[in-house]
Amino acid sequence: MRLNRPYLITRSLCPENMESPIRFLRGPVTPTEYFYRRNHFTYPDLSAQSYQVHIDGLVNRPRTFTFEEIRSLKSREVTTVLECAGNRRNYFRPRVYGERWEDGALSQGVWQGVFLGTLLAAVGMQDNVREIVFTGWDHGESNNVPGQYHFQRSLPLNAALDPDTIIAHSYNGLSIPVKHGHPLRLIVPKWYAMASVKWLKQITAIGDSFGGPFQTVDYNYYPDPVTDVGKYPVTTMHVNSVIQYPLDYSVLRLGIHQVEGIAWTGKGMITKVEVSLDNGMTWSEAFLKQSTSRYSWREWLFPWEVSEVGTYTIIVRARDSSGRIQPFVPMWNRMGYGYNGMSKVHVKILI
Amino acid sequence: MRLNRPYLITRSLCPENMESPIRFLRGPVTPTEYFYRRNHFTYPDLSAQSYQVHIDGLVNRPRTFTFEEIRSLKSREVTTVLECAGNRRNYFRPRVYGERWEDGALSQGVWQGVFLGTLLAAVGMQDNVREIVFTGWDHGESNNVPGQYHFQRSLPLNAALDPDTIIAHSYNGLSIPVKHGHPLRLIVPKWYAMASVKWLKQITAIGDSFGGPFQTVDYNYYPDPVTDVGKYPVTTMHVNSVIQYPLDYSVLRLGIHQVEGIAWTGKGMITKVEVSLDNGMTWSEAFLKQSTSRYSWREWLFPWEVSEVGTYTIIVRARDSSGRIQPFVPMWNRMGYGYNGMSKVHVKILI
Repeated sequence: MRLNRPYLITRSLCPENMESPIRFLRGPVTPTEYFYRRNHFTYPDLSAQSYQVHIDGLVNRPRTFTFEEIRSLKSREVTTVLECAGNRRNYFRPRVYGERWEDGALSQGVWQGVFLGTLLAAVGMQDNVREIVFTGWDHGESNNVPGQYHFQRSLPLNAALDPDTIIAHSYNGLSIPVKHGHPLRLIVPKWYAMASVKWLKQITAIGDSFGGPFQTVDYNYYPDPVTDVGKYPVTTMHVNSVIQYPLDYSVLRLGIHQVEGIAWTGKGMITKVEVSLDNGMTWSEAFLKQSTSRYSWREWLFPWEVSEVGTYTIIVRARDSSGRIQPFVPMWNRMGYGYNGMSKVHVKILI
Repeated sequence: MRLNRPYLITRSLCPENMESPIRFLRGPVTPTEYFYRRNHFTYPDLSAQSYQVHIDGLVNRPRTFTFEEIRSLKSREVTTVLECAGNRRNYFRPRVYGERWEDGALSQGVWQGVFLGTLLAAVGMQDNVREIVFTGWDHGESNNVPGQYHFQRSLPLNAALDPDTIIAHSYNGLSIPVKHGHPLRLIVPKWYAMASVKWLKQITAIGDSFGGPFQTVDYNYYPDPVTDVGKYPVTTMHVNSVIQYPLDYSVLRLGIHQVEGIAWTGKGMITKVEVSLDNGMTWSEAFLKQSTSRYSWREWLFPWEVSEVGTYTIIVRARDSSGRIQPFVPMWNRMGYGYNGMSKVHVKILI
């Protein structure tokens, strides 16, 4: 039997937004060709200047680190899920505007780079630093705020100094692909991927809260359909999972089917995945494969024996070690971030 | 600005079913890389035997035509839409089972080959012939009927003898791509594409109605959710259209936007495309570009000036020269064929 291969799924071309064919992928690492592409702007033109990162703001010795310098520093490897904050947006009801991501704005890989704290120590942070701002080389018209902006995001000091927050120079053992942040990318495990700024240009220590559009307008939860009441920022990933097999609305035959998928979280680790075949009245535990690393997704399996023809709905929910569990209906928010409703698949069984 | 390119969208891998990124394509001809792939089985292994087609049944001189013989006969060119009968299935409500095609199980190209009637004349049809059965080299387990089958479809005599029904040996000036029926493919303009049998192996003249599973079980409209009451076969394409720009649930700014798309039909030609911005209360005519050929889709444009922020729904409907018009809600049928409800796009407009 010939082995067919999937492609990335296009959501928009300009800027380029494509999702991973996540339901068709197996294994712990997403190859570059299946790594989802998420852009606010056209790809930046990389020049010699892009091969360095400048650190300034409330630091004692502002300076520029070249790509070579960063590569020569002691590096660490971080295997992590990267999930777009808008992943699964298409499932919100009422529907929301924005890229219509299904489950595949999600990838996993091995990043190698230098601990951000090492660079910050080298420049000497002043006592009044509250946040670190990261600027990417990508820029253009913002979607939601008039004007030209670079992509900029800040991290509170504790997240910036987390030992696994790195300035990465490699992905899966090679230099970072151009579409994923080459030459240098901030990697922030546990956070939704807007925090992992691509094409890193500048790092700035500031004494107050950063107010850029991708910090205070985009990437916020707006629970109210119209006003900004109750607004709060998107930070770490919710507990989440996806069913990879069977496919939704597929037709299968009687027998044993291996229900499969992955589960991930931004807080602790996945502790349990459960499957329901009666709309949530009863739940059975799925088998969890070993986790490959602290921030990686966990593959799960559930052998499902079907002895009666008919239509079935398979519902899956994951729990994490912080005590969180996927909700049946997640909190609706106007910009459609952080969807983590239970994954559902409808199947028809024939003789 | 860099030009980004879309990919085919995977619906299933085994068998391979992928749709064209139709909303991102322009122009009269679909290149092979964007031609949707629709399979019931794994791809057939092509041998020397596949480079010929055998004609038998109720004919006076059954014989085998080699690929070279067919290539040497007088050929005609047919530019046509090919649309999978399940195209747009994902929009049916209530939802139905089967491949979840959105708008892209649709392509258009230039087929070159020999008039089927020429071959049938060469073998001499007997008087009692009612249908012509076409067998493809692809075979395997049927989805809906237990057992092993080749893909087989029949045509009534009048459709088989239509001057534009051809045995094609070329697509867009090159030999037919392997995934699209190489070396020989039946091409039946106007009909949904299940009629255009790929990897053609055999042509058989019969005296009654063909009863194969892809003729009498699949590719039938079942209006009833459970029983077979009212069942009738899928034949020619409904009048249909798709909005290519803007994308559904996209966010745009005030100003003039060019709403664009294509419209097609299996009966006559497209005569009018209309756009509504008030849920169908009033309609404005879109500009129809020249048709490139009798069976090709027509591109349409509608300049839309938006002077107020808010959310909008753009609805489009096409009419054809047979007097048909796209319905708001098309006839629901259990296997989800022939969806031709009006294309709708939701847009949010900001300052």
